[in-house]
Amino acid sequence: MIIGIEPVPGSGAIVRSADPRTGEALDPAYRAASDADIERACAAAARAFPVLRATSAQRRADFLERIADLLDERRDVLVERAHAETALPRPRLTGEVGRTSGQLRLFATELRAGSWQGARIDPGRSGDAPRPDIRQRRIALGPVVVFGASNFPLAFSTAGGDTASALAAGCPVIVKAHPAHLGTAELVARAIAEAAADTGMPEGTFSQLVGVGTEIGISLVTDPRIRAVGFTGSRRGGLAIAAAAAARPVPIPVYAEMSSVNPVLLLPAALAARGAALGAAFAGSLTLGAGQFCTNPGLVLAVDGPGLDTFTEAAADAVASNAGAVMLTNDIADHYAAMGDALAARDGVAELARGSRPDGAAAGAARLLTVDGSRFLADPELQAEAFGATSLLVRCADTAELTAATTALQGQLTATVHADEADHPLAAQLLPLLEERAGRILFDGWPTGVEVGHAMVHGGPFPATTDARTTSVGTLAIERFLRPVAYQDVPPALLPAEVRDDNPLGVRRRLDGRDAIAAS
Amino acid sequence: MIIGIEPVPGSGAIVRSADPRTGEALDPAYRAASDADIERACAAAARAFPVLRATSAQRRADFLERIADLLDERRDVLVERAHAETALPRPRLTGEVGRTSGQLRLFATELRAGSWQGARIDPGRSGDAPRPDIRQRRIALGPVVVFGASNFPLAFSTAGGDTASALAAGCPVIVKAHPAHLGTAELVARAIAEAAADTGMPEGTFSQLVGVGTEIGISLVTDPRIRAVGFTGSRRGGLAIAAAAAARPVPIPVYAEMSSVNPVLLLPAALAARGAALGAAFAGSLTLGAGQFCTNPGLVLAVDGPGLDTFTEAAADAVASNAGAVMLTNDIADHYAAMGDALAARDGVAELARGSRPDGAAAGAARLLTVDGSRFLADPELQAEAFGATSLLVRCADTAELTAATTALQGQLTATVHADEADHPLAAQLLPLLEERAGRILFDGWPTGVEVGHAMVHGGPFPATTDARTTSVGTLAIERFLRPVAYQDVPPALLPAEVRDDNPLGVRRRLDGRDAIAAS
Repeated sequence: MIIGIEPVPGSGAIVRSADPRTGEALDPAYRAASDADIERACAAAARAFPVLRATSAQRRADFLERIADLLDERRDVLVERAHAETALPRPRLTGEVGRTSGQLRLFATELRAGSWQGARIDPGRSGDAPRPDIRQRRIALGPVVVFGASNFPLAFSTAGGDTASALAAGCPVIVKAHPAHLGTAELVARAIAEAAADTGMPEGTFSQLVGVGTEIGISLVTDPRIRAVGFTGSRRGGLAIAAAAAARPVPIPVYAEMSSVNPVLLLPAALAARGAALGAAFAGSLTLGAGQFCTNPGLVLAVDGPGLDTFTEAAADAVASNAGAVMLTNDIADHYAAMGDALAARDGVAELARGSRPDGAAAGAARLLTVDGSRFLADPELQAEAFGATSLLVRCADTAELTAATTALQGQLTATVHADEADHPLAAQLLPLLEERAGRILFDGWPTGVEVGHAMVHGGPFPATTDARTTSVGTLAIERFLRPVAYQDVPPALLPAEVRDDNPLGVRRRLDGRDAIAAS
Repeated sequence: MIIGIEPVPGSGAIVRSADPRTGEALDPAYRAASDADIERACAAAARAFPVLRATSAQRRADFLERIADLLDERRDVLVERAHAETALPRPRLTGEVGRTSGQLRLFATELRAGSWQGARIDPGRSGDAPRPDIRQRRIALGPVVVFGASNFPLAFSTAGGDTASALAAGCPVIVKAHPAHLGTAELVARAIAEAAADTGMPEGTFSQLVGVGTEIGISLVTDPRIRAVGFTGSRRGGLAIAAAAAARPVPIPVYAEMSSVNPVLLLPAALAARGAALGAAFAGSLTLGAGQFCTNPGLVLAVDGPGLDTFTEAAADAVASNAGAVMLTNDIADHYAAMGDALAARDGVAELARGSRPDGAAAGAARLLTVDGSRFLADPELQAEAFGATSLLVRCADTAELTAATTALQGQLTATVHADEADHPLAAQLLPLLEERAGRILFDGWPTGVEVGHAMVHGGPFPATTDARTTSVGTLAIERFLRPVAYQDVPPALLPAEVRDDNPLGVRRRLDGRDAIAAS
């Protein structure tokens, strides 16, 4: 573990990650955090907070870039270890290292751009309608706990988006490493600790704790020094953390990304024009990475007819001939199989195709199920996520039933529409429904693959996340860990630089409601 | 009541507001909302939502301005009724009408400015490093329930800040009228309904329900069609609503402004230079409006010495000679007296002065208590709010104890510092502590009086509010009722106007992370 920059062994129970191909435990053995370790990490984060949040954005940008450089330098070692722990293919993991370092660099760029500070100045007035001088900026919330995700051992784990955005905001981070990839987590944590030391960040800026079960997570979330939580994982886990955070004497925000079936709507003209191509491409998105993406297309809604028959045949063929894959852990593979069986056993559900299951302890097979629109409307359980490569195709009788099925959707990370020009009037009717139910709407593509940029929203209404007002990917994520503070008639010498008259940082500001970049 | 634009009588129990001077019930008698009324209001709001959020910002701005015009036109009637129901002085209520209409007009201006939409565009790229086209804007959350506040019958009630910001965002609003000023609430609700009709807003854009006790509030907050809550009131009420919202099958955000003692820090040089003037001015802020402001200075922290003696003498004299005032309701006056007695009875607390209590059913007397810094540090109960004109002066032994007392502060709406030039080094040390504990920091003034503008933050860490990431006053409040949505490769004809290439609305946007107002 890493507590306040230095590596320390835990003093609790022994924990090991396992090779999901064989189920064999991997070296080294780690020890879980004891209560004393948790206390040390929280105390260090609380001590670091006032120092870290007072560092300049420039210095925090340097810190993030240094982490990125170290991860890139150590890419091969990271890929090997992550491959052993997750069975994810090396090319995918190589890409994930680049995505992780790219994300850190994007937040460094964002820090230097400065608009994240939300600076606003309403200058004071004397005379007939006097008013005080009021200035606003955003400050960091405080120490943040981040829960590493199983399915992205790099991009959503130790140095993933939650950590990058929280550190960028000036919040110390305590990561609870995911037990499925402890070795990867250690390598990344060491890089962060080294970067913190290299760039002069205070001790306690970053810690990482090891643990199994929910106890350590709940201890962290309920520690009074913790001020926000980032989580990516199961609905059960996310809800438990949100409940614990809400029950604190001082409740704190929880940003939990939980579950989504990412509906894909196939509109009639698109289906008629290219049902076969859509079917094959859909199966490709479904089975990518053993379906272990939060944006995996687990639900397809379409109107019955020859176009859908063609789609179904192509998709079923591709699923049936899919070789399957080793999943991330035994638990995930077991849960995946059980959830697929549970869906398949619901009234009116039929199996269209099932792929092969390779050798390996945690192997999973792709699966395509189908149900009528009327059954789908009657049974909300059919919207449950089977995390992995299982999808449910809903055959709607007509566009009215398609619209009803869309209206019945729970909150989602994404919603996808395949539409030709002739479908646009229908698409225009469906779009507002999708906006209310998803964080990202995409046309004529597939939801897997989340671009890291300024405009991305990776979030959405409950149960996709616990807080639809935000995103876990992209630069907007920095706002999760900030809050506004107003300064009224504060003497110029005591004002924070971003709201001083001379604007020494050159940040974008709203001056009396108008946008202004220059000095006021 | 008003449900979906038309006035309807309730069908529940009879409710009347009372004249707080006499305790006599006022005509007319209202009837509380039945379950059927609640159902009707929620159904109307849900039907209105997709229509309202699709109206242009320009049209919603017209709507808000029409409300403002009607309130201004009816100012005298509003002031008379509010005066009868609240005993607040007519000049104060006249000012509050202007503040309420001004606030509606400010949100209209903000709607037309357009930066609230948070538009971002990351254009797609083909070639070596292809990426999809991603665009982001913010959309309205859905129907919002607003709880009117007792102490601002206009500016924080039916057409107050929460209603203005929610309507601006495109969210239908259901107000739960405060039972203390039902007549004022009715007059304002009629103006809103009339303005909605005049400007073509959909039925269900606005409703107002009457009720007593917590039942109707909890029914509204737990209705699945409600998507957010704005509340200003007691800690007990706010916590009950937040708990109900968190326990929903689909939890929703609650913006509850609850309690704050608004610490005032008197630094040594300022005290030495003008202790007497500060004491008199403090007493003026404390007793303004019978102390019934959420920003009332209920706590003073200062270092013992001759300067503080002078301050104390002046403040005690002013409090002792204060005539007292009729408070808003009997319940508030009773609670105020009981909380003051409870504070006075804590170990180490002494009463420095008590003012007179005028005739009147709900009369209250100003009160100044004192305690040593060491006792204050040992007893968190001394931070409890006595809503009204009671304040606790904490005499600290030295600046170290003053710093410790500042560190021990719970979350606050405001923190005030009185400092002369010689105090600035100490002020600079205290400022970061205050930033972490308050939403607004003011120097050399008094916290009562909240300027409505772009830079204001009226919010703060728990228990001041349930969500420190936001404000209930000022244009930033519109963000409470919005969430981001991303559009990936959406055909240009289907894109919302604010993220189309030609930028027909001329809104500010971030283009590939850079600020840009012109067409992309």
